[in-house]
Amino acid sequence: METRDYSKDFKTLNIEVNGNRLVYLDSAATTQKPNVVIESIKNYYENINANPHRGAYYLSVEATKAYEESRETVKCFINAETSKEVIFTKNATEAFNLLAFSYGMDSVKAGDEIVISIAEHHSNLIPWQRVAKDKGATLKYMYTNEFGELTLDEIKSKITEKTKIVSVAQVSNALGTINNIKEIIDYAHSKGSIVIVDAAQSIPHMKVDVRELDVDFLVFSGHKLLAPMGIGVLFGKEELLQKMPPFMLGGDMVEYVYEQEATFDELPFKFEGGTQNVEAAIGLKVAIDYLEEIGMETIAKIEKELMTYAMDEIKKLPYVTVYGPSKIENRSGVISFKIEGVHPHDVASIFDSHGVAIRAGNHCAQPLMRYMGINSTCRASFYLYNKKEDVDKLIEVIKSTYNMFSKWR
Amino acid sequence: METRDYSKDFKTLNIEVNGNRLVYLDSAATTQKPNVVIESIKNYYENINANPHRGAYYLSVEATKAYEESRETVKCFINAETSKEVIFTKNATEAFNLLAFSYGMDSVKAGDEIVISIAEHHSNLIPWQRVAKDKGATLKYMYTNEFGELTLDEIKSKITEKTKIVSVAQVSNALGTINNIKEIIDYAHSKGSIVIVDAAQSIPHMKVDVRELDVDFLVFSGHKLLAPMGIGVLFGKEELLQKMPPFMLGGDMVEYVYEQEATFDELPFKFEGGTQNVEAAIGLKVAIDYLEEIGMETIAKIEKELMTYAMDEIKKLPYVTVYGPSKIENRSGVISFKIEGVHPHDVASIFDSHGVAIRAGNHCAQPLMRYMGINSTCRASFYLYNKKEDVDKLIEVIKSTYNMFSKWR
Repeated sequence: METRDYSKDFKTLNIEVNGNRLVYLDSAATTQKPNVVIESIKNYYENINANPHRGAYYLSVEATKAYEESRETVKCFINAETSKEVIFTKNATEAFNLLAFSYGMDSVKAGDEIVISIAEHHSNLIPWQRVAKDKGATLKYMYTNEFGELTLDEIKSKITEKTKIVSVAQVSNALGTINNIKEIIDYAHSKGSIVIVDAAQSIPHMKVDVRELDVDFLVFSGHKLLAPMGIGVLFGKEELLQKMPPFMLGGDMVEYVYEQEATFDELPFKFEGGTQNVEAAIGLKVAIDYLEEIGMETIAKIEKELMTYAMDEIKKLPYVTVYGPSKIENRSGVISFKIEGVHPHDVASIFDSHGVAIRAGNHCAQPLMRYMGINSTCRASFYLYNKKEDVDKLIEVIKSTYNMFSKWR
Repeated sequence: METRDYSKDFKTLNIEVNGNRLVYLDSAATTQKPNVVIESIKNYYENINANPHRGAYYLSVEATKAYEESRETVKCFINAETSKEVIFTKNATEAFNLLAFSYGMDSVKAGDEIVISIAEHHSNLIPWQRVAKDKGATLKYMYTNEFGELTLDEIKSKITEKTKIVSVAQVSNALGTINNIKEIIDYAHSKGSIVIVDAAQSIPHMKVDVRELDVDFLVFSGHKLLAPMGIGVLFGKEELLQKMPPFMLGGDMVEYVYEQEATFDELPFKFEGGTQNVEAAIGLKVAIDYLEEIGMETIAKIEKELMTYAMDEIKKLPYVTVYGPSKIENRSGVISFKIEGVHPHDVASIFDSHGVAIRAGNHCAQPLMRYMGINSTCRASFYLYNKKEDVDKLIEVIKSTYNMFSKWR
């Protein structure tokens, strides 16, 4: 496949680390930002910075326009029906807490069930523990098979008529497994449950259409999608959001405020209390524009090609265990692995000395790690700006790390 | 007083609006950002952007260092005892919601009293309505006198042995009143209540020392302090924060996560779930450094001089009503006013045509407006980058606006 070198659009990807070119393989934690996004922040603060929605003057009007344009861009990006369904939060974690606090605490009753998977990120797990405990409900887990996948049998055995909420990641951040969420959504709906999808690890890499999926709520963060830090998105079906109580109470989300009570603004503002992060919203718009100009299909293709190559190469190393799906089509751009005889944290440190940035740890998925009988893994994750030579470097440092530790055995 | 022209450090303050030099008089809503702050954002994304606290590699180590350095800077800025007492939030609103949800819901019981002032911003008001309603507690108001001030008599008549929480602004965003919070804190403590101070409108303009005040919690936002959007600060005494349950549940704030329960990380991380806004934290540090280099005393002096001049000039106009304290020493850099016969929203629009940015409305303080028997005011607010000629321009457009409407009478 002939593609241009996207890393040229990213200043960070051209720095040196410990005398080596930086090879950034931690995009599942946060992505680097293209120059156009960084430039948009600068432009915002130099030309139109103001508190939006509240001012009649030029700057505030411009800031409001830009903020709402970003909402419109997100709406189109995920194919929501209306921009009222797009709520900005500070990160995906706030979106999950909003859902747990507002939808969860409001609709879950004693005896109800909340179903999540054992592979969920802590942000889509601990908030549900709180709801279940507070409401006397049960938090049930769907367990993965040996490849880190959710089978239809497992899904069917856990989602029942008692289930009120199913919350599941489209792509596992720890293993890279792509879940068939359409299957989960359809089955859960047939049992009368709503479905929340954690799209933090999917939406940067593939086309996600909320109407095609018929998903009730969908959550993602901007910073994993080339956008600045400090912005997340909660999509919700309008009819559900309408009925939910607000989460963050304060300015800009009210209609009338009396001494002892208050009425709230319309969607989406009801859920956006306080001064919002206009800068990050603008950055998110520019990031989405950048991605869409390339095309989500092209990005998926680039990553698949990269992953195929990486998996082929890594499988040649007998001392490396790779976790997660064996089939490349069930996998996003994440490789979770272990090198025999070397602790993942040591691996990450040695890789750093070669300028290679990977993550080691439990990836905010302790229940999954415990279920798999391990404490941690090394995780290399790719994005459109990675290249074949990054994979070569990864393989090279895996080899040299193993050899280095072999000597001491 | 001989001072340098700080507006030269701010690109936005040198743009033209509707053919006029921009005169920005809405710093109480959000401040403009000095070039050094904008530059620090760019530097961050171009050189050290990463998810902090979780990575062993160069970028993540640098991002963590910068993030924690910012916490240290805030600690020194407010004179907290330890950086564990400094919690980053997305804005002041989140900080109040955190306090209401975590401290409020946990400690307030039926029959208890929560005391706030009638001049509070909605963000320091509606969260307490929720706590009072949920817990069967009473939300009591301290009312202001004709100058928008809280008298000691009023304070003493409202804070009782039943009071568990007093939450009050150091400076009113709607009127600019400086409250004697030391008096309130001491009296509340004598009755056994804790005190929360909303410093959003004070800390950008004056030295605030949490230990000297002996305040229990203090809240402010970065964007009103020259910092980027997307960051707020909650200060809390360590012993209080230790006992509080976490608010946002998710990654980076846990110790151990099991399927049905979780234990939480130490302070301050317990309250910082999810990927934090490193960019904004760095910007906040640079903003504080910029302010401290000038000196908070110098800033207070600049603003006092400006306010004295502005108040003298505005009082010469018989058709202008100015709300709030008559004594200049009881006033921060805010002038809330009305022009006879002209609706505040019209005023703001006409001012905009002259390039003058002011705010019109209820300033997120509807109960105060209702109490004062008005719907809205015009608000001009100053900061260190404003100049005598900005005041002249303000007076000039007040005059021309009045004259314009006089013709139609």
